Amino acid sequence: MTKKQPIIAVIGGGSCTKEEARLAEEVGRELAKHGATLICGGLGGVMEAACKGASSEGGTTIGVLPGDNRQSANPYVQIPIVTNLGYARNVAVVKSGQAVIAVGGNYGTLSEISHALQSNIPVIGLNTWSIARNGKEDKAIVNAKNAAEAVAKALKLAKESNDQD
Amino acid sequence: MTKKQPIIAVIGGGSCTKEEARLAEEVGRELAKHGATLICGGLGGVMEAACKGASSEGGTTIGVLPGDNRQSANPYVQIPIVTNLGYARNVAVVKSGQAVIAVGGNYGTLSEISHALQSNIPVIGLNTWSIARNGKEDKAIVNAKNAAEAVAKALKLAKESNDQD
Amino acid sequence: MTKKQPIIAVIGGGSCTKEEARLAEEVGRELAKHGATLICGGLGGVMEAACKGASSEGGTTIGVLPGDNRQSANPYVQIPIVTNLGYARNVAVVKSGQAVIAVGGNYGTLSEISHALQSNIPVIGLNTWSIARNGKEDKAIVNAKNAAEAVAKALKLAKESNDQD
Amino acid sequence: MTKKQPIIAVIGGGSCTKEEARLAEEVGRELAKHGATLICGGLGGVMEAACKGASSEGGTTIGVLPGDNRQSANPYVQIPIVTNLGYARNVAVVKSGQAVIAVGGNYGTLSEISHALQSNIPVIGLNTWSIARNGKEDKAIVNAKNAAEAVAKALKLAKESNDQD
Repeated sequence: MTKKQPIIAVIGGGSCTKEEARLAEEVGRELAKHGATLICGGLGGVMEAACKGASSEGGTTIGVLPGDNRQSANPYVQIPIVTNLGYARNVAVVKSGQAVIAVGGNYGTLSEISHALQSNIPVIGLNTWSIARNGKEDKAIVNAKNAAEAVAKALKLAKESNDQD
Repeated sequence: MTKKQPIIAVIGGGSCTKEEARLAEEVGRELAKHGATLICGGLGGVMEAACKGASSEGGTTIGVLPGDNRQSANPYVQIPIVTNLGYARNVAVVKSGQAVIAVGGNYGTLSEISHALQSNIPVIGLNTWSIARNGKEDKAIVNAKNAAEAVAKALKLAKESNDQD
Repeated sequence: MTKKQPIIAVIGGGSCTKEEARLAEEVGRELAKHGATLICGGLGGVMEAACKGASSEGGTTIGVLPGDNRQSANPYVQIPIVTNLGYARNVAVVKSGQAVIAVGGNYGTLSEISHALQSNIPVIGLNTWSIARNGKEDKAIVNAKNAAEAVAKALKLAKESNDQD
Repeated sequence: MTKKQPIIAVIGGGSCTKEEARLAEEVGRELAKHGATLICGGLGGVMEAACKGASSEGGTTIGVLPGDNRQSANPYVQIPIVTNLGYARNVAVVKSGQAVIAVGGNYGTLSEISHALQSNIPVIGLNTWSIARNGKEDKAIVNAKNAAEAVAKALKLAKESNDQD
């Protein structure tokens, strides 16, 4: 039987600020340093920065693409998964992670956060969405102060979640 | 060429409070009275209450089911769409609506709100989620005070959106 | 509880020969005359001809679209379901039918035939694919000589299948 | 920029004969020996045998799972992609391959063959389906006499297809 590395999803906008890119790249580096495989939506912005960071440390990167063409993956994706599912691929991105790290992000990222929480997959947030249900804050998104803390929390929560499987 | 009725999506939890069910049923009735077709996820809770309301006024109801079996539709769904896509069917529910009315709801509903906003489909909220991006409130969800107002706003926004197509 | 009409899927190429269009249109008309709702992929060719036939007899037509835009539906689709799932929407087309009628068709149609057979949904063929498994013919596709026979067989098999649910 | 290995999809039944398992395992071994990454549906039968073969030669194995749980992957899947899409995941399996090798197989495999051909992805067959369109044989499935020939043809066709991208 094959020993499996932890798989962590990194989500965020297809375009992003420099600060978000810097954060995402550091998240990618930290994941690779800890032996985790990175899965993401495979496109630009936060996804590309995270893959770049992971690649720079020799990590494995998977991109679950919305479109019909593997060429649409950012250059740091080693394993492109071509779905042609459009935004429905967001579900596969987060469900394939044992934890999810959100960096900034737009409505697509919010959909991924929601799908993760719906599936009881831990979500760690870096400068991302916060949510309130009928006026009352929902604290399911675990905040982190920086990339290293986000990765540490993700790996810890992924391990706990895995132990319960 | 066939004249198409407006199609409005109603989203909310598969289980819900009595007050949410009352609201959803009234939303369904109002939609039918205004000649709109109702599309939803086809299951219980808010979805069933909305279909019940629409059916009571002779409206058309469509349920886009996550599972593999048309028998899983609530009894007020006239047209069951069987997807076997799990939560990825949420994308089809909201994209098929020209506007979306959210009643209460859990993380699945939040994912649907997100997918709708991502696609520039108007979302009207009744006692539902509110969202903030990096600490700043996002006001894309249009609040309504009651079912009649929600339906009126949905039909108006659907028409405006349609005129731009 | 709402009485549900039988729903029959009609599948075939997005472009087709005149003879296929004539067959598909007659299939659509026959379905409507027998009170069945027609579901299809919503685009041109066989799908459009079938919807045209059903509409001419006052039938209900549903188009499960692969793309992101309800405007892509053929003009005879009354209820466009917008999935943005690409060819994965083929699964929803056939799973929503209680029987499937295939008219001609290319590889997309063959994928739909396969998904239907995989789900034990009866498939009736009019000038369509035939299949052989490791050199031995598979006779799961029920041949029909003309549109009227195809519809009669589809409704009979749909009813039998439904009675077993 | 990261150098990408070729990715080849192996498809076939979730249960299979001993001879099919033997063939699939050899296909997996051959793929790994040639430095190709194997992608499949992640379950048992042909999928498991192929992953076992690839693993035994140190290859990378990806399983695109239909269900909601990474634990459903066969033990030789190194990278489980959790889609919860049911059979719609078949589309992602074949679209992620630069060529597809079919070993035996049931209707699900035929749907994958169809989706691949629809996307102009080469399909190599080992004791699998043959197809005829309106009575005339369609020779798009490239037959191979054994596992080594199937892998050689898949890698050659994948390379040609890639050069045209």
